[in-house]
Amino acid sequence: MSKAPKIQPLGDRVLVKTVEDQEQIKGGIYIPDSAKEKPQEAEVVALGTGAKNDKGEPQPFNVKVGDKVIVSKYGGTEVKFGDQSYTLLREDDILAIVG
Amino acid sequence: MSKAPKIQPLGDRVLVKTVEDQEQIKGGIYIPDSAKEKPQEAEVVALGTGAKNDKGEPQPFNVKVGDKVIVSKYGGTEVKFGDQSYTLLREDDILAIVG
Amino acid sequence: MSKAPKIQPLGDRVLVKTVEDQEQIKGGIYIPDSAKEKPQEAEVVALGTGAKNDKGEPQPFNVKVGDKVIVSKYGGTEVKFGDQSYTLLREDDILAIVG
Amino acid sequence: MSKAPKIQPLGDRVLVKTVEDQEQIKGGIYIPDSAKEKPQEAEVVALGTGAKNDKGEPQPFNVKVGDKVIVSKYGGTEVKFGDQSYTLLREDDILAIVG
Amino acid sequence: MSKAPKIQPLGDRVLVKTVEDQEQIKGGIYIPDSAKEKPQEAEVVALGTGAKNDKGEPQPFNVKVGDKVIVSKYGGTEVKFGDQSYTLLREDDILAIVG
Amino acid sequence: MSKAPKIQPLGDRVLVKTVEDQEQIKGGIYIPDSAKEKPQEAEVVALGTGAKNDKGEPQPFNVKVGDKVIVSKYGGTEVKFGDQSYTLLREDDILAIVG
Amino acid sequence: MSKAPKIQPLGDRVLVKTVEDQEQIKGGIYIPDSAKEKPQEAEVVALGTGAKNDKGEPQPFNVKVGDKVIVSKYGGTEVKFGDQSYTLLREDDILAIVG
Repeated sequence: MSKAPKIQPLGDRVLVKTVEDQEQIKGGIYIPDSAKEKPQEAEVVALGTGAKNDKGEPQPFNVKVGDKVIVSKYGGTEVKFGDQSYTLLREDDILAIVG
Repeated sequence: MSKAPKIQPLGDRVLVKTVEDQEQIKGGIYIPDSAKEKPQEAEVVALGTGAKNDKGEPQPFNVKVGDKVIVSKYGGTEVKFGDQSYTLLREDDILAIVG
Repeated sequence: MSKAPKIQPLGDRVLVKTVEDQEQIKGGIYIPDSAKEKPQEAEVVALGTGAKNDKGEPQPFNVKVGDKVIVSKYGGTEVKFGDQSYTLLREDDILAIVG
Repeated sequence: MSKAPKIQPLGDRVLVKTVEDQEQIKGGIYIPDSAKEKPQEAEVVALGTGAKNDKGEPQPFNVKVGDKVIVSKYGGTEVKFGDQSYTLLREDDILAIVG
Repeated sequence: MSKAPKIQPLGDRVLVKTVEDQEQIKGGIYIPDSAKEKPQEAEVVALGTGAKNDKGEPQPFNVKVGDKVIVSKYGGTEVKFGDQSYTLLREDDILAIVG
Repeated sequence: MSKAPKIQPLGDRVLVKTVEDQEQIKGGIYIPDSAKEKPQEAEVVALGTGAKNDKGEPQPFNVKVGDKVIVSKYGGTEVKFGDQSYTLLREDDILAIVG
Repeated sequence: MSKAPKIQPLGDRVLVKTVEDQEQIKGGIYIPDSAKEKPQEAEVVALGTGAKNDKGEPQPFNVKVGDKVIVSKYGGTEVKFGDQSYTLLREDDILAIVG
């Protein structure tokens, strides 16, 4: 519905579009409200410039644009584009790919 | 009873199915309620993409799918699939294999 | 309107001109007031002398002067030049380039 | 009296059987109640898979099964097998071998 | 007005003469009272013996004696020489060179 | 008066016999009650198995059995053998050799 | 007036004789009471056995016995020898040499 914003994450950061609490993504994962460290479903929208190894070479990501992922609700930084929420977070804060 | 969800943990993370408090797994381990750092029985359901060493090669896991394990109750992130609880946690937070 | 101050950031620090809360930068990114870790739009004004690697060589930056960026509102150190606010912050505290 | 449980500790962890407070192990070591960091007598029951060095080789342990040891009372994770308490802890949390 | 004290900073430390709050240094930088991490103008008076790299060789400084700099007001250790305040701080706590 | 207990400290730990507060060891060092980080006189009774370097070789100790030392009163773990107090602590927590 | 105690500091530690608050050392440095991190004048009395590099070789100190130094008042551990206060502290906690 909303176009993805033109954001280039830096380093090992990733931009994800967060899924509304009411929805459930494909695969039927349900995130209980009572979860201690609240996870959240999201979709990868843009990858960063890449973390660099000791030689200064950017490292590949384990996720790709379009992946449905589980992230911690309280990790990263939220930005809005129109009505849609996005989150900028480090790839290591993505817990798993779903589906 | 419930099918395992299609979740691919990332990095050194592991997906485990947590065993109900009332049950006991094979081998008769009992987890006292009064334990200071509360451990919990669980079963390994999926392994992550693997932590990477300095050369970027994924490292093998010490556990395999199907292993009964002891994990800290408060470690990792809980997700639900139908009625079943799962936990995403780092392999180093698995204390031991049972049975 | 105001000339950039003559400030040479040190090491991996960057000087950015912070954008007023009321404004929005090109691309339509909107930063919600309720965001947990408040991000802020800014424009890169000066690059530091560069972080040094193990051999003492300064490393290149991922941003360049003129880039519109998203930074954490509470990161770095604020200085004023006339009526304009600037922030000195480490490059790793810049979350993304916009536009 | 109780058989050792079938537990395979992971990594540099060790399983020890904790000795009752009333008892004293061979050698006459007595642990004062007033001790600031409360130590506890225990017996090594099982060794872990071994911490790994940079090359991924498991490292040998300084203790062996059957060793009487002094551990910090509040370190590690307690599990029960029948009436007997066991503790899973990292080898570095074992302070000394006794006797 | 006051002679610089004979102080040889050690390691990566630098001695700076702090500028009075009322004054402004060349270039018109103004430090707002409301700044969260309060910066302060200062002038470099003496360089340390130099941080050492892995081979034990002292590393060069990015600042030189006489540089006008911006430092964090609450970093380092204040000493007085007559009526003049000085601060001993690590070079990494100097944010930028001004002018 | 009391025989030393048969304790083999592990790793870089050392067993010391703590000297009563009323006594003073040779050299006339006096530990003021008001000292912020309370030091305590002690005598080295047993050395550990040795910290290991990157190659797994145990490293030599700077102290030897019989050395009179100054340790932090609140460092390490206290154990009793008969009426005598002993402390298990890491060698780096020994501040100095006296006499 | 008082002889230096026979104390051999260990590792990178140094023994310093702390100067009374009322006195001022040569060079006219004055330590304001209101200083946030309270520094203190002292004189180096004994050097440690030396910190060791990766190869196990002891490293030289930047200070020598007799140097007048500025240390943080609350760093290190105070010991008394007769009426004179001494402090055992790590060399990195010495801020500067005076005079």
